[in-house]
Amino acid sequence: MSEQLTLYTAKICPYAQRTEIALAEADARFTRYEIDLRNKPEWYLPKVPAIAYGGPQVPPDQPSPESVKLNESLVLVEFVADLYPNSGILPKDPVLRAKARLFIDAVSNKFSPANFSVVHNDGDPEQLVQALEHLQSLLPPTGFAVGEYSLADIAIAPFLGRLHLNLANDLGGFPEGKGEGERILKLLQSPKLARFQEYTKALLDRPSFVATFDKDHILQSGKRRFAELRAKKYGA
Amino acid sequence: MSEQLTLYTAKICPYAQRTEIALAEADARFTRYEIDLRNKPEWYLPKVPAIAYGGPQVPPDQPSPESVKLNESLVLVEFVADLYPNSGILPKDPVLRAKARLFIDAVSNKFSPANFSVVHNDGDPEQLVQALEHLQSLLPPTGFAVGEYSLADIAIAPFLGRLHLNLANDLGGFPEGKGEGERILKLLQSPKLARFQEYTKALLDRPSFVATFDKDHILQSGKRRFAELRAKKYGA
Repeated sequence: MSEQLTLYTAKICPYAQRTEIALAEADARFTRYEIDLRNKPEWYLPKVPAIAYGGPQVPPDQPSPESVKLNESLVLVEFVADLYPNSGILPKDPVLRAKARLFIDAVSNKFSPANFSVVHNDGDPEQLVQALEHLQSLLPPTGFAVGEYSLADIAIAPFLGRLHLNLANDLGGFPEGKGEGERILKLLQSPKLARFQEYTKALLDRPSFVATFDKDHILQSGKRRFAELRAKKYGA
Repeated sequence: MSEQLTLYTAKICPYAQRTEIALAEADARFTRYEIDLRNKPEWYLPKVPAIAYGGPQVPPDQPSPESVKLNESLVLVEFVADLYPNSGILPKDPVLRAKARLFIDAVSNKFSPANFSVVHNDGDPEQLVQALEHLQSLLPPTGFAVGEYSLADIAIAPFLGRLHLNLANDLGGFPEGKGEGERILKLLQSPKLARFQEYTKALLDRPSFVATFDKDHILQSGKRRFAELRAKKYGA
């Protein structure tokens, strides 16, 4: 891979972190450009994350029309896996690949809606517990989603990192200071989710995760964002 | 690929046809087992389509616990591409792969909801026209979704085949005999969709499509299904 690769990303965004983890796992050389999602530069049109690939070496804030522009986080993770076949994020075995993609399908269609409900406080947190139990049922006895670390783990880790950080700081769509963050966190710590907890710990300890998860920045941005959401929902 | 592969499928189902087209493109040897979706056998638990891969050679209606069970049509198409790298359905170039996956993302998130609305008559058919215009904007000047035939084309072809067949036979969620099928078909034949029409024709002429699209069966099943839907919506 000798073409230039520029990643347009935002530390706050879990979708963007997927792509950053993939690039970290691949030990890729790339130009990282942080987009302020609350104040997008005028020249920046697509969603975050996006990759500009190939074309001439140009300053990232002057993207060349000659580079290929790609987006959608899961497409970008597969793209990084294809550019760096030795990154290991795409298993070699077709059956493990299929299992990784089925896990991602469950993340997108079962976990994400339940997680979104907790974040916005418009559903029963018990649904999130059920979604995690389902994901847990897909896990092998030890190791990551398909044993070895893969794109399946990359798909969920950024969301689990933010969920735990937010709940531990009483951040969410629920009212502040009523112990709701702690209560939901306790649901996630139920013994029936023991295997999933072990899996979560391994995900969040992974060096590629740690290196791309700016805890302080995400916490500060989260405080601002949830303050706004709560003001809207419950009045200032 | 020497492991046994059994496909559980249904001619009526566009998702299932995706997997059948992929297997036809790969010239794969497999056991095909038709599931009657209106009268599912008791031993058959998963959704259609599903693949049982590996394990001993067994009669398809007695699946072995030793085979791996996989489902989700897009996961199965990628699985077939991985088993048969020479099938050509997964482009070799990482950029083309990413573009194929972006096209599929637009099929899932833009085309499918609009198509579903037409089928159930609960939205404005103009939304479908807009979705097709968007897909058209992703097409190269000639050829398939990314030039060469790929999994992107497999993702949409079964839906276009059924849409055209149904509309031409006045089948849909709309009332019967009011010319509504013809009217929507005319919208799709608008000159502004000329490139998409050419693309659709190439998709539906593809031998792997023709071989897996049992027109008479799909039409007869459609007549029965839409008669039921209409009776429910508009009374008998």
